[in-house]
Amino acid sequence: MSFDRVWTDAHLCTMQGNGLGVIEDGAVAAKDGRIAWVGKRADLPAGAAETTRCDGAWILPGLVDCHTHLVFAGDRAREFEMRLEGASYEAIAKAGGGILSTVRATREASEDALVAAALPRLDALLAEGVTTIEVKSGYGLDLETEARMLRAARRVGAARDVSLVTACLAAHAIPPEYAGRRADYARHVADAIIPAIAAEGLADAVDAFTDSAIGFTPEETAWVFDAARRAGLPVKLHADQLRDDEGAALAARYGALSADHIEYANADGIAAMARACTVGVLLPGAYYFIRETHLPDIAAMRAAGLRIALATDLNPGSSPALSLLLMLNLGCTLFRLTVVEALRGVTVNAAAALGLTDRGTLAPGQRCDLALYAISRPAELCYWIGRNACVGRVVAGA
Amino acid sequence: MSFDRVWTDAHLCTMQGNGLGVIEDGAVAAKDGRIAWVGKRADLPAGAAETTRCDGAWILPGLVDCHTHLVFAGDRAREFEMRLEGASYEAIAKAGGGILSTVRATREASEDALVAAALPRLDALLAEGVTTIEVKSGYGLDLETEARMLRAARRVGAARDVSLVTACLAAHAIPPEYAGRRADYARHVADAIIPAIAAEGLADAVDAFTDSAIGFTPEETAWVFDAARRAGLPVKLHADQLRDDEGAALAARYGALSADHIEYANADGIAAMARACTVGVLLPGAYYFIRETHLPDIAAMRAAGLRIALATDLNPGSSPALSLLLMLNLGCTLFRLTVVEALRGVTVNAAAALGLTDRGTLAPGQRCDLALYAISRPAELCYWIGRNACVGRVVAGA
Ligand SMILES: [Zn+2]
Ligand SMILES: [Zn+2]
Repeated sequence: MSFDRVWTDAHLCTMQGNGLGVIEDGAVAAKDGRIAWVGKRADLPAGAAETTRCDGAWILPGLVDCHTHLVFAGDRAREFEMRLEGASYEAIAKAGGGILSTVRATREASEDALVAAALPRLDALLAEGVTTIEVKSGYGLDLETEARMLRAARRVGAARDVSLVTACLAAHAIPPEYAGRRADYARHVADAIIPAIAAEGLADAVDAFTDSAIGFTPEETAWVFDAARRAGLPVKLHADQLRDDEGAALAARYGALSADHIEYANADGIAAMARACTVGVLLPGAYYFIRETHLPDIAAMRAAGLRIALATDLNPGSSPALSLLLMLNLGCTLFRLTVVEALRGVTVNAAAALGLTDRGTLAPGQRCDLALYAISRPAELCYWIGRNACVGRVVAGA
Repeated sequence: MSFDRVWTDAHLCTMQGNGLGVIEDGAVAAKDGRIAWVGKRADLPAGAAETTRCDGAWILPGLVDCHTHLVFAGDRAREFEMRLEGASYEAIAKAGGGILSTVRATREASEDALVAAALPRLDALLAEGVTTIEVKSGYGLDLETEARMLRAARRVGAARDVSLVTACLAAHAIPPEYAGRRADYARHVADAIIPAIAAEGLADAVDAFTDSAIGFTPEETAWVFDAARRAGLPVKLHADQLRDDEGAALAARYGALSADHIEYANADGIAAMARACTVGVLLPGAYYFIRETHLPDIAAMRAAGLRIALATDLNPGSSPALSLLLMLNLGCTLFRLTVVEALRGVTVNAAAALGLTDRGTLAPGQRCDLALYAISRPAELCYWIGRNACVGRVVAGA
C-alpha cells in the first residue's frame, strides 16, 4: 500500500462501535485526504511518504461543534455586568440589551465586519481540535441581513482550515418591525427568506426556535419546515429549552437532523426522536449560563437509544462559550454524561447532527480530520476544567 | 523623570479605590521593577528608555491565584470516569480513588517528578496573566513528603517568571497510618511537622482543613494554628465548605490571612472575619465540580464589608481547574458576584489573602506585575466562557 502520511506513537479513539473504540499503540494512515488505514502500529503496512511520531498523544476524530451562532456583531458584556449589578429587565432593554441589541448591531455591521469579529472566535475553537463547525444566521431577521450573515459565515470557513456548514435561523426571534405580528413574520420567513437563501445556496439546513412564549408555535415552525422541504434543505430545531412545547416530537415528525437544548423534552418526544434518527444536541453552556435548573432527561434518552451530541451554542446572549472541551466537563458534571457519551457527543454524534457520515470516526474512507491531545487517557478531556491539551490538528490529511 | 520602560496605548484597571479604578487611554511606567508612574497618557512625563505600545489593550495588575494545590502526583481522571458510570464510593476506593490515592501517589513521587508534573499546570495559569500563585502541600501528610512537596513548589516557582508563595497544609486529611487517631495526627502536625517545615523555611503560611466530618475539629485546628504562631507563620483555613463548623469565626479569632470556601459560613462568622481583616476566598470551581448547591452568603459578606477573593483551588479531587479567568465567570454566574467584585477578587483582594500589599493594584511603588488583555471592556474578562484574551504578561517590569 502507499500512503501520503502516517501518524504513529499514538493511541486512538476510533469511535467505532458503541464506545470509544480505543486502540492503544495505534497508527493512522492518510491517502488523498482520507483515512486509508487504522489499526495497531504493529500491523501497519509499509509505504508511507511521511511519518509523524506523536509522542504517545491520543488521536480522536477532529471535533465537531454542531451548534454555534459564531457570526454576530455587538457587545453583550455590558448587559452581563448590569444584570449582576441588579439592573431590571427594563433598564437593560433601555440600555440596548437583549437579543434585539444583537440584531440591531448585526444589521448595522458590514459583511467584512462580521467576518473580522468571527475569526478570532473561530480560532479559539480550532485551537482545541475542532475541524468541523456549524454556524447559524438568526440575528438578521430580514432577508438582507440573514443572507449577509451566511455569506460572512462562508467566508470565515474559507479563511481557515475547517469545514464550515451553515443553517438559516431566520425563525429565531420576532424582529421589531413585526412586533405583535409573529405569524406574519413566520409566513415571511417561509415564503420569502428561505426560498431566496436556498436559491443563493447560502444555507445547508434550516433551523427554527419553537417556544410558546418567546419563539414560534409548532404550527408556525411547520410552515418554516415545509418551506425548507420545498427548497430541499434538511431541518433542525431549537426545542423545549425553557418549557415543554412538544418540540422534540415536532422535530421527529419532520425527520430533523437534530433537536437542540431539549432540557424539557418529554420521554415520548425523546423516543420519537430516536425512532426518527434525530440527534439530541445538549448545550450545557447555555444551561449553565442562564442558571437553568431543569435537567434534560438523560435516562429517557439512554432508554430510547437516542444519539446525544454536545455543542458550545456559542452566542452572545446565553452562551458566550469559546471552548468545546469545556462543554465536555459541563456535560459530565451537570448532566452526568459518561466520558463515552461526552466524547462521542463531540465526534461521531455531532457529525450525525449535521447529517455528515464521512467524519466523526477513525475508519478507512473517512475524511482524515484528526485532533491530537497530550493526555494519559481519554477521560482527561472531560475531567480537566479549562485545560487545552490539544497538540495537533489535521484537516483532510494535511 | 527617567523610566526603564513605559506601556502606552492602553486602558488601565488600577484597582485603586473601591472599584476598578479605570483610566482610559492611560500609561504605566516602570523603574527598577516597580511601578514608577500611572496615569493618563497625556500626562505621562518624558524620559522612558523603552516604550511598548499596547494597541488599546486593557492592563490589569498581574493576576494572583491565592489558593492552589498545584503540586501533586497521580491521576484522578479514572475516578471521575468511574463515578459517572455509577460506581459506588466503595468501588472507587477499591480501585484506588479518593484523596488518599493522591497521597499515595505523591508519597511515591520524587521531587523531580512532582516538579515535572506541576510545571505544565503552572504554565496554563501563567498564560492567562497570573503573576503570583500560592501553592499548598497537603498530599504528603508526613514530614518527609510535606517537605518534598514544598521544596518542589519552590523549584517550580524558581523555574518560571512568577512569584510563588507556599502554605503548609499538613492538616489536610488524616493519613492512613493515623486512621482512628485524628487528634494524635493533629498533635504530630503541631509538634513535629510545622516546626521542622518552618525551620527549613519551606512555608510562607500554615493552612488547615476544619471539618467536623472529614477534617479536623476547631480544637485540633487551634493546636496547629498555635504551632504556626510559635513558628512566626501566618495562618489560613479551609473553612465551612461542606457544613457550618464555625470555621469563619475560628479563622477570625486567629487573625487568619484568609478563610477559604466558606459556603456555609454564618453571618456572625463573616462579620468577625471582616473585623479581623481576614479575606474571604471563594472557590467556585470546587462548588461547581462537586455540585454543591448551598451558596455562600454573599449578601452577608457585602453587608460586613468583607474583602472577597477568587481562586482556582486547582486540585485533582474537587477542582481540576487550570483557568483563573474561568473562575471569574463561575463567580459571577453561580455566586452573582459583580464584575468589580470578581476582578478585585483576583487582584488586590487575592494579594491581601496572601498578606501581600506590594501588588494587586497599579500604583507608584507597587511591583510592576501586569497582565494585558485584548478586550473592549473589563467586563469581558468575566463574560466569556473559556476565552483566554491575555496578550501580555509583565513580571517585575520585565
Ligand atoms: Zn442556539
Ligand atoms: Zn483547597
